[in-house]
Amino acid sequence: MIKEAIFHKMDKEYCYALEAGKFLLKVRTKRDDMHIVNLKYTDKYAFSRDVVGIFSQEMTKVATDRLFDYYETVIDIDMICLRYYFEFIGKDKEVTYYGAYEFYSQDDKFTCDNMFDASQQVREEEIFETPEWARGAVVYQIFPERFARGSKREAKDYDDWNMAPMEYNSKLGGSLRGITENMSHIKELGVDVIYTTPIFSAPSNHKYDTEDYKKIDPEFGTEEDFKVLVEEAHQKGLKVILDGVFNHSGTSFLPFKDIMEKGQESKYWDWYYIKDFPLKMTRGEKPNFHSFAYYYGMPKLNTANPEVREYIFSVVDYWMNEFGVDGWRLDVSDEVSHDFWREFRKRVRKNNKDSIIIGEVWYESSPWLLGDEYDSVMNYLFRNPVRDWIAESKISVSDFADQMGAIRGRYHIRAHEVLWNLIDSHDAPRFLHFANEDKRKLKLAALLQMTMTGMPMVYYGDEYAMTGANDPDCRRGMVWDEEKQDKDMFEYYKKIIALRKDSDALKKGERIDVIVDDNNELYAFKKISGEEELLVIINANNSAVECDLHVGKTDLITNTIYQGIMPSKSGVILKIK
Amino acid sequence: MIKEAIFHKMDKEYCYALEAGKFLLKVRTKRDDMHIVNLKYTDKYAFSRDVVGIFSQEMTKVATDRLFDYYETVIDIDMICLRYYFEFIGKDKEVTYYGAYEFYSQDDKFTCDNMFDASQQVREEEIFETPEWARGAVVYQIFPERFARGSKREAKDYDDWNMAPMEYNSKLGGSLRGITENMSHIKELGVDVIYTTPIFSAPSNHKYDTEDYKKIDPEFGTEEDFKVLVEEAHQKGLKVILDGVFNHSGTSFLPFKDIMEKGQESKYWDWYYIKDFPLKMTRGEKPNFHSFAYYYGMPKLNTANPEVREYIFSVVDYWMNEFGVDGWRLDVSDEVSHDFWREFRKRVRKNNKDSIIIGEVWYESSPWLLGDEYDSVMNYLFRNPVRDWIAESKISVSDFADQMGAIRGRYHIRAHEVLWNLIDSHDAPRFLHFANEDKRKLKLAALLQMTMTGMPMVYYGDEYAMTGANDPDCRRGMVWDEEKQDKDMFEYYKKIIALRKDSDALKKGERIDVIVDDNNELYAFKKISGEEELLVIINANNSAVECDLHVGKTDLITNTIYQGIMPSKSGVILKIK
Repeated sequence: MIKEAIFHKMDKEYCYALEAGKFLLKVRTKRDDMHIVNLKYTDKYAFSRDVVGIFSQEMTKVATDRLFDYYETVIDIDMICLRYYFEFIGKDKEVTYYGAYEFYSQDDKFTCDNMFDASQQVREEEIFETPEWARGAVVYQIFPERFARGSKREAKDYDDWNMAPMEYNSKLGGSLRGITENMSHIKELGVDVIYTTPIFSAPSNHKYDTEDYKKIDPEFGTEEDFKVLVEEAHQKGLKVILDGVFNHSGTSFLPFKDIMEKGQESKYWDWYYIKDFPLKMTRGEKPNFHSFAYYYGMPKLNTANPEVREYIFSVVDYWMNEFGVDGWRLDVSDEVSHDFWREFRKRVRKNNKDSIIIGEVWYESSPWLLGDEYDSVMNYLFRNPVRDWIAESKISVSDFADQMGAIRGRYHIRAHEVLWNLIDSHDAPRFLHFANEDKRKLKLAALLQMTMTGMPMVYYGDEYAMTGANDPDCRRGMVWDEEKQDKDMFEYYKKIIALRKDSDALKKGERIDVIVDDNNELYAFKKISGEEELLVIINANNSAVECDLHVGKTDLITNTIYQGIMPSKSGVILKIK
Repeated sequence: MIKEAIFHKMDKEYCYALEAGKFLLKVRTKRDDMHIVNLKYTDKYAFSRDVVGIFSQEMTKVATDRLFDYYETVIDIDMICLRYYFEFIGKDKEVTYYGAYEFYSQDDKFTCDNMFDASQQVREEEIFETPEWARGAVVYQIFPERFARGSKREAKDYDDWNMAPMEYNSKLGGSLRGITENMSHIKELGVDVIYTTPIFSAPSNHKYDTEDYKKIDPEFGTEEDFKVLVEEAHQKGLKVILDGVFNHSGTSFLPFKDIMEKGQESKYWDWYYIKDFPLKMTRGEKPNFHSFAYYYGMPKLNTANPEVREYIFSVVDYWMNEFGVDGWRLDVSDEVSHDFWREFRKRVRKNNKDSIIIGEVWYESSPWLLGDEYDSVMNYLFRNPVRDWIAESKISVSDFADQMGAIRGRYHIRAHEVLWNLIDSHDAPRFLHFANEDKRKLKLAALLQMTMTGMPMVYYGDEYAMTGANDPDCRRGMVWDEEKQDKDMFEYYKKIIALRKDSDALKKGERIDVIVDDNNELYAFKKISGEEELLVIINANNSAVECDLHVGKTDLITNTIYQGIMPSKSGVILKIK
């Protein structure tokens, strides 16, 4: 047994209430090291008075990553404070006990001094609440300038819709009206949520350089257009999520313009982090003020300034309360303070307790996913291994499974259910580009999205097998020309999204790996929820592979009987129970 | 090398700014496993554009506990975001690299995808600021009912001052005036801070069952008396810290009385957590409302209720702004939410940016010590091993050293400098009681307090070698009878406090163990700060022990030349540099 591998922290990641009286405890061990792990617990105040003894409950291994296993258990309790420790029975027969960060060889050494402690009351106040509608829901990401022009727009006013790759600054004329007019396409695909990159007034085509946070960009339309868009979406049962670009503004945002004019005399001086004046705003040179990625065109807002906070919150209030926006995806959110996001969450949830907040963090995000900041993040930790395994064959099946295990093992269970599992976005080359345009691979990636727990995100056009290298190429105009649409891909997406919609096992069930075969590049895992049990088999191999698991069961995707042969680059979903 | 033992988290405990441009990085490894640990780092945005390469800096082992070593390094940087990973060169010659929670065998595998990330800007906003005056300062804890009656009080009105052990409810007549009148004693001892247990109006003698948070308890005196006390203390250069009992009130607190009268009609109904009415308030029975330790006499305040918060903050404002209180020790603080304490800190620091906040948490407290809640805690993790080693000989020298190492290794460096290192308090038997009245042991415990980094806390009377079992016995009347005072102990305390005051090495220097000899119960450690270097030697053995380190140097405590023999239960502080 490797004691040094055992990790627990009496804090929100490893010890939290799921609801009043229901407590989740988690502990990490070295992979394959333990035979049995038991939670031992008691009531702090009753125990200290000798009124109750110690209870014991076996823990379940819920995830495995490259080095570690993760054990969890949920206990029903009604007490002021929980006291607990762990019993480990190793595969090597060694037995050890762990309390208050120390190890003991005897179970009778635990007193009030050396157990772990958790205040139930506090944990119940801190319950991580995510919207019920979001758990397992499917998101559709739109880059508005490139989705659809909509009626009343003339081609001659814009660059060619189908030119590709485009210039960084080209304008194709997409609009909010274009989105609304094509909402039946989105609805037909079967998604639940529309997320658009920024739509507020800004000079660029991507609109991440905001000029006016309370105005729809005139190139995209009007406030009225947006109102219609949200109403139409809500009528169709779709949620609408906007992009909150609060790390930085554009340089044409009034407060920054005021500073450019008046220097230190400007009443907005403290809205930014400015070292000296006049401002250095030359491409390729480090500006003398904080900015996004040292780019002078995106000056960093001082979100520690209460005036700036209040302004941002007024923006949030406005779009939520006047237009019914259902949530926010937060741009560059890891470069803004935890303190700001905590206050942000309170304000957003006050406007609508059923709203959702998604951070843009490209790496492990648990510091933000503990219940008081975001609900979710753009989950690049899903995208990277899907790309590496399916598109580029750079990692093995077991590497992939380990990385999925890390996601389940490391994240708070409430965050895990709503992670935005993407395979591409406006910020990265499309999956199909990495896959060397092999559409079978795109289908496998989409199948992984739709069968893993979380919120799969479809980037506009994936459903028609659109491709594209790094931006701007990944932001091509949506394929509306029916000749050029990959209808087969669309039907595939529609099917697997529909299957997901009907299945709690796919949406939020536990994953249990059944085959992790590196030689054959074969991966089979069960998804289980209540009585429901599905088996997903994926053959990433260049050849067909035999797999005799559950032969004779129906593949829900094709509605055919599974014969025990998995063709090259293919996947099935078998209904087991 | 045991990779599973390596721990780092790209979050506040392991990665923080000390000041603008100065970043501290920490990583934990298996004990004695590493030959060299290097931090490799770069500028996120410059690296992603190939503008800069990777820098390397060797890390220093700063602490060791039973299982782990802790390495730290501080780097000077000026960048938007830091990207970094670690290089480990094991004692077994194995070399491994660790980035984004995964291990790599090659140093050339690091891209933008797999390093750790930290936003410098965010970390600078989140700098953990503690008051300069507090770092290393000495605290004197007073239980006001038992410290001194003061003039104008007649013995006949109270129980016998010198009776012991006392009844739980006996009243001896201590008062604020008693404190003020004896402040020259406190000053002579050489401490920097007076902390009193509660002084607001409450029926009990300990005053933890508050009746009126804005009134001095009439048995203790008047607001005027308190004003004089604070003024007198400030004139003498002493800070005054009050006990904030905000987890619960007493039952005679107006809002609770209103509920007892009016039930659910009371406008204060939501100030508490009440399940049903009428209230069950019978000793020995679980009340039908949340309370401290299931005791009906201390109903738990609903600090999630904004009205309650505002009330508590108004209390804090009142005593800080009208009376000049310098900080708060927070009773049962682990049973109140993080969200409450974060807001609490902002309010307290707004009143006085040089004030201090100390939580009552009896166990590892890092979740509260990250810069946005408390500055410090009552450090029972210091008291327990001092008791176990020095008083009771239950643990070895190396156990003790490991536990001191755990404190240094696990806590934020800013918290570590101000931890309230106590050996006893009003809540536990006095050290001397555990030590079976062996005063030599008390001297050793005090010597450890005064030589370790943190804020040593002297509980009133320790300086005269007072003893006492569990409360109420540990709350005996202070020994003012000169016949009964242990003057030798007082001189000893005075001396070691004075030595500490003059020495940055003692107050906040790094500790380096030189001898950890379990057989001889001999412990020697250096404390180092800048050019200053002291050696502390402690012999906890029942016999004299030879120790030939730095023979001929002066023992600062006795001002005699150290001869190389440590008598039984003795300690020295040698000036090395």
